[in-house]
Amino acid sequence: MESERKVNMAAGPLETILNPSSIALAGASNNMNKMGTIQMLNLIDSGFPGEIMPVHPSEREVLGKKAYPSITDLPFAPDLAILVVPTALVPDMLEDFGRLGTRHAIVITAGFKETGEQGRGLERRIIEIAHTYGIRFLGPNCLGIVNTHLPLNVTVAPILGYGGGLSLASQSGTYIAQTVHFLRRNGIVLGKAISVGNEADIDITDCLEYLGHDDRTKAIGMYIEGIRDAGRFLRVARRVSGKKPIVAQYVGGTEAGARSGSSHTGAIAGPDYIYDGLFEQAGIIRVGTIEEVYRVGWALATQPPLKGPRIAVLTNSGGPGSGIATTCNAAGLEVPEFSDSVQEQVSKYIPGHASARNPVDLTFHIDMKALTVKIPEVLFSADEIDGVIIHGIMDTGFMDLLYPSVSKHLEVSREDFLAFGEITLDELASMPHTHGKPLLISSFFDESDHCVRLFHKSSIPTFDSPEKAAKAMWALYKHCLIRQRGTSTPDKRTRGMIPARAKEIVSSRSRTGMDEYSAKQLLKAYGIPTTEEYLAPSCEEAVKAACRLGFPVAVKACSPTISHKTEHGLVFLDVDDEDAVSRAFDAIRSYDPDTPVLVSEMLKGKREFMAGVSYHPGFPPCVMFGLGGIFAEAHRDFAIRLAPLSREDAREMIDSLRARPLLGHYRNMEEVDMDTLENILVRLGDIALDFPGIKEIDLNPVIIVSGVPKVADSLMIIP
Amino acid sequence: MESERKVNMAAGPLETILNPSSIALAGASNNMNKMGTIQMLNLIDSGFPGEIMPVHPSEREVLGKKAYPSITDLPFAPDLAILVVPTALVPDMLEDFGRLGTRHAIVITAGFKETGEQGRGLERRIIEIAHTYGIRFLGPNCLGIVNTHLPLNVTVAPILGYGGGLSLASQSGTYIAQTVHFLRRNGIVLGKAISVGNEADIDITDCLEYLGHDDRTKAIGMYIEGIRDAGRFLRVARRVSGKKPIVAQYVGGTEAGARSGSSHTGAIAGPDYIYDGLFEQAGIIRVGTIEEVYRVGWALATQPPLKGPRIAVLTNSGGPGSGIATTCNAAGLEVPEFSDSVQEQVSKYIPGHASARNPVDLTFHIDMKALTVKIPEVLFSADEIDGVIIHGIMDTGFMDLLYPSVSKHLEVSREDFLAFGEITLDELASMPHTHGKPLLISSFFDESDHCVRLFHKSSIPTFDSPEKAAKAMWALYKHCLIRQRGTSTPDKRTRGMIPARAKEIVSSRSRTGMDEYSAKQLLKAYGIPTTEEYLAPSCEEAVKAACRLGFPVAVKACSPTISHKTEHGLVFLDVDDEDAVSRAFDAIRSYDPDTPVLVSEMLKGKREFMAGVSYHPGFPPCVMFGLGGIFAEAHRDFAIRLAPLSREDAREMIDSLRARPLLGHYRNMEEVDMDTLENILVRLGDIALDFPGIKEIDLNPVIIVSGVPKVADSLMIIP
Repeated sequence: MESERKVNMAAGPLETILNPSSIALAGASNNMNKMGTIQMLNLIDSGFPGEIMPVHPSEREVLGKKAYPSITDLPFAPDLAILVVPTALVPDMLEDFGRLGTRHAIVITAGFKETGEQGRGLERRIIEIAHTYGIRFLGPNCLGIVNTHLPLNVTVAPILGYGGGLSLASQSGTYIAQTVHFLRRNGIVLGKAISVGNEADIDITDCLEYLGHDDRTKAIGMYIEGIRDAGRFLRVARRVSGKKPIVAQYVGGTEAGARSGSSHTGAIAGPDYIYDGLFEQAGIIRVGTIEEVYRVGWALATQPPLKGPRIAVLTNSGGPGSGIATTCNAAGLEVPEFSDSVQEQVSKYIPGHASARNPVDLTFHIDMKALTVKIPEVLFSADEIDGVIIHGIMDTGFMDLLYPSVSKHLEVSREDFLAFGEITLDELASMPHTHGKPLLISSFFDESDHCVRLFHKSSIPTFDSPEKAAKAMWALYKHCLIRQRGTSTPDKRTRGMIPARAKEIVSSRSRTGMDEYSAKQLLKAYGIPTTEEYLAPSCEEAVKAACRLGFPVAVKACSPTISHKTEHGLVFLDVDDEDAVSRAFDAIRSYDPDTPVLVSEMLKGKREFMAGVSYHPGFPPCVMFGLGGIFAEAHRDFAIRLAPLSREDAREMIDSLRARPLLGHYRNMEEVDMDTLENILVRLGDIALDFPGIKEIDLNPVIIVSGVPKVADSLMIIP
Repeated sequence: MESERKVNMAAGPLETILNPSSIALAGASNNMNKMGTIQMLNLIDSGFPGEIMPVHPSEREVLGKKAYPSITDLPFAPDLAILVVPTALVPDMLEDFGRLGTRHAIVITAGFKETGEQGRGLERRIIEIAHTYGIRFLGPNCLGIVNTHLPLNVTVAPILGYGGGLSLASQSGTYIAQTVHFLRRNGIVLGKAISVGNEADIDITDCLEYLGHDDRTKAIGMYIEGIRDAGRFLRVARRVSGKKPIVAQYVGGTEAGARSGSSHTGAIAGPDYIYDGLFEQAGIIRVGTIEEVYRVGWALATQPPLKGPRIAVLTNSGGPGSGIATTCNAAGLEVPEFSDSVQEQVSKYIPGHASARNPVDLTFHIDMKALTVKIPEVLFSADEIDGVIIHGIMDTGFMDLLYPSVSKHLEVSREDFLAFGEITLDELASMPHTHGKPLLISSFFDESDHCVRLFHKSSIPTFDSPEKAAKAMWALYKHCLIRQRGTSTPDKRTRGMIPARAKEIVSSRSRTGMDEYSAKQLLKAYGIPTTEEYLAPSCEEAVKAACRLGFPVAVKACSPTISHKTEHGLVFLDVDDEDAVSRAFDAIRSYDPDTPVLVSEMLKGKREFMAGVSYHPGFPPCVMFGLGGIFAEAHRDFAIRLAPLSREDAREMIDSLRARPLLGHYRNMEEVDMDTLENILVRLGDIALDFPGIKEIDLNPVIIVSGVPKVADSLMIIP
């Protein structure tokens, strides 16, 4: 056991919390109705190989373990302290542990930040104590941890399976402790699981980082109500997801979801679309249900990586075959018609009227040997196939359904009848690893079917309806794409220096803020193409500028203090001769004699986009790109990425627009210069990071002129 | 029993097929490895109250029933004949039954249309025989029927539950016969289930109609690979869905799904978007998985209708509460913060640090009485709540998890320990019906938990993850909206006469087809607003027309034989003086001296839509409406409805566009005249039905001019 427990200090406090040599637990008694008692019971019965020391004011023994009346009575400082005591007792007890020399804790007790002002004060207090003594802790308001690799379990439910490759980090304790029955039924075995609670100290990002380093964790599942420091989360997740799949559910993106999360763990949620952007950028596979976190996570943890999109579907029935095929297709996977050679090989094993095209449908005339060995062998061996989904393998589950009727006509015991029907799956179970291709199973039976038991034993994911297997295969494909891209986030060094000209522009801005001209100058300093334009101090200069630019031009009031310029008649577009320029200039000056006047080229292009930076609590500046022009709000076709952006981030966000075809060779228009467009988005993020004083950046419209995106109008606010 | 079996002749052949007095089955023997034998076994053991007569060439008894060597040897004509014999024998045997006087059959045998040319011939042959003898039949290539109300079962799996309100019509036999284990585990009990196979005679629409009339069917689930006569399906479904919920999965909308369906039952599939339109118009609740057909169907079959969108969520845990709340919200349901009065009542029953806002979160400190009686009573009684979802009710499932550990410290048998934990749910189970509000349950336990067993017994739907319960509540809400709308489809009478002028235009069209001018005249005859325009026989007339219309105008070649007019330089837009009109006229005539020239007003409006009619095999003409202009293909924002359209259909398709806000009071533009827009879509469908010779109708763009949609360009093809 010792070898399993060696502590890797480099991996931080979670290494000790998940692998302590000794634990003191306060809050357990011999009363079986107490939560602390149940947790202590599970701790003892988990098989934890270290020392367990209950702290109890009056009992001499708790659940058979010698109890200590107070923390100061403990014989030595335990590696880990666990508190399941009334809220008011937590600060003093934590302090006692600190004095004793304990440096790691789990505060299970609730009643802190999530309950309001008083609770927030109490939470601040325990953070201070932890700082004073150098204690790192999980919680408060959490359900503890499970480490089936050690093993160790301090939750309210027992461990039902040991040594799995799927580990969890969750902002809900229920999802690490109250779903064990569901997981066991579905053959899913957890590795490590961490309930983070209010994240007063250790947060979900720390857990992600830890699990990313953990060799026995093959895939990571997450339940998220809100991320506190999204920038750090992104950097960590991006490093991890390049090697190890991460699947996550985010529930804070609606009004009711956000309200619920706030009462639950005091989480601060954000709109769904920024989490969509964050997850995409971080390489996190987003799912909509906790069931998918588990099931998809289990597929990712157990199966060889999918290397391409081509899926073979093998069934004993047309319905499930069609359901799998259509779900795969709709999710971007291919279910290609097999080559003649593969069809020929498959045909040997199927009835004459059945289809060998893909899906392969054996129809109800089941030859289990064909379904479990012969055809799978053909499919796994075929170069044209990257992954396999099979529906319809069953033995005793089906036999058992028939037994009551059959037994009236055959003299056979249930045991003999079922034993007669049992098949072996050794060959099939070895195929994924032999051929390096994933296998997913769909079956309407549960563990009462011997085949399902065998699949569970072999860690072959088994889904209780066909479309779920297809959805999990989609996740494997998504991870394939994530692995293929870079894992690094640009940092300060790769971003380069702040252009001197940019600093100049920002520091010399007028007392009232940035005007359109200065904003565009700043963009230009970052290499972002904008309209050519001049500030005209006089009518004469305005006319000269217009002549230099060529007609038509735009003539606009240029002042950060005038809002709604268009509504005030201070924007003149398509001004097409010298007289008209003069009239426009005069009109603007008669509204406000001090207003600078901007004369710009008129950009001509039918395709209008918009870019900008949006700001959300807990997030670094977020670069936004989407369809622009006057219909933008109606289309709501945009994507978000967190600054700093890599080139790849920019490309991916561009590619994610529904209106992406508009950027191509659309209706004989020029293909858009992607290099320039990507650069605009990357540099926009850099501007936001270089000048944190900026509170709003809005480039709308960005017009495509002969294939080149150019900023036609720009708004920047620096208070 | 007799009363259950009385045959309602008005309900058609399915009434007899599902409620026969006598059945002859050919294809069963005493060999337990034969499919026919298994089906006969299940027929006998289902409790079928009528006579069963096996037909077998050599056995004197089959499964204990007297067997007849041939059909001609049967003592009388059975109500229903079932064939599970080799394909080649089917025609003669069907004929024998016909001669004997049997008028209803189920042909389970496969090997017909789905296998290619020879099979198609054989299928035509059995259709002829059926016509000759007046036989109505299900199949071929099906798995039979289940009627748990009679009871009667001729499938390969036994009935595991009797008398449920969810009935199925399925193009996959598996989904009525091979999912019984899944259904039992989830407490779902079927009523009637029909596998339609190749639909050579009775089709899935007949089944829908039958189940619509069936009093014991409370909700209908469907699995669909392709609908043969979508117009009839729509009329039937629309009538049924106004009273009884229908939930359906359609799998033919992708390339692989269509290929799979075609090998399976020879179904002809159509693109996903026309089925989306069909289902919406028909009032069918579309789901993406067979699991949802069952689970959502069960919720619809058992719970009182939801009367509004306001859902209360009650949990013992924040995670599931947040998952339910956010899934409800995202699906369009409300999870409103409770009024002070409701919060006050709820607060009495929850711990101090728990939330009473909605979701109500009891946290882990569970008081089962609060979770199952006291708080539910408050929520069901509250006028501000329309439906309730509860997560976290459990007893023996959880106790059993604890027992191994607890039993080391308490002397108690497992039975006593579990019995001690058992709670009652009588009060909760009665609340939905007492208060007329639906209740859905989420639990991670299965039937090994006594509470789950009680919920199953009380027909309270229980979902094995929180988001699924929320999704089912969405379906109840969707049915609420469907019930609120009209159920009638317009028929010939409500559509009115074909305008005389329209007939004239169509019959007097040139030999080469409809030109733009005639097409617009036809639209005008149906009251669809278009550009004002004139056909100019001479340059002089063109100029006169332009002056009459007011400048600028459009000048176009107007001939059905010239395609790509724009590319050939035969369309002149924004022509803004008399000279320019002359030049345009001359340019067109120099290209082709015989081409008529059209002079039209130029419509001015920023908002462009498109409308049209698209044609799909098996479908009546489909009216299409969507975002228009040059970016239409990139946006792909459109909706489809089958002609004839009601006003409501038109309104719903308009409302379903993502860009719907553009039709409102968008950015100070005029709100669009919805009456006119609806009328355009309704009348477009009428045109397509009135003139079936038309093969294409394309109105693009439809420009919004001062709030009125007007057709700027129109293409119609009549070969």
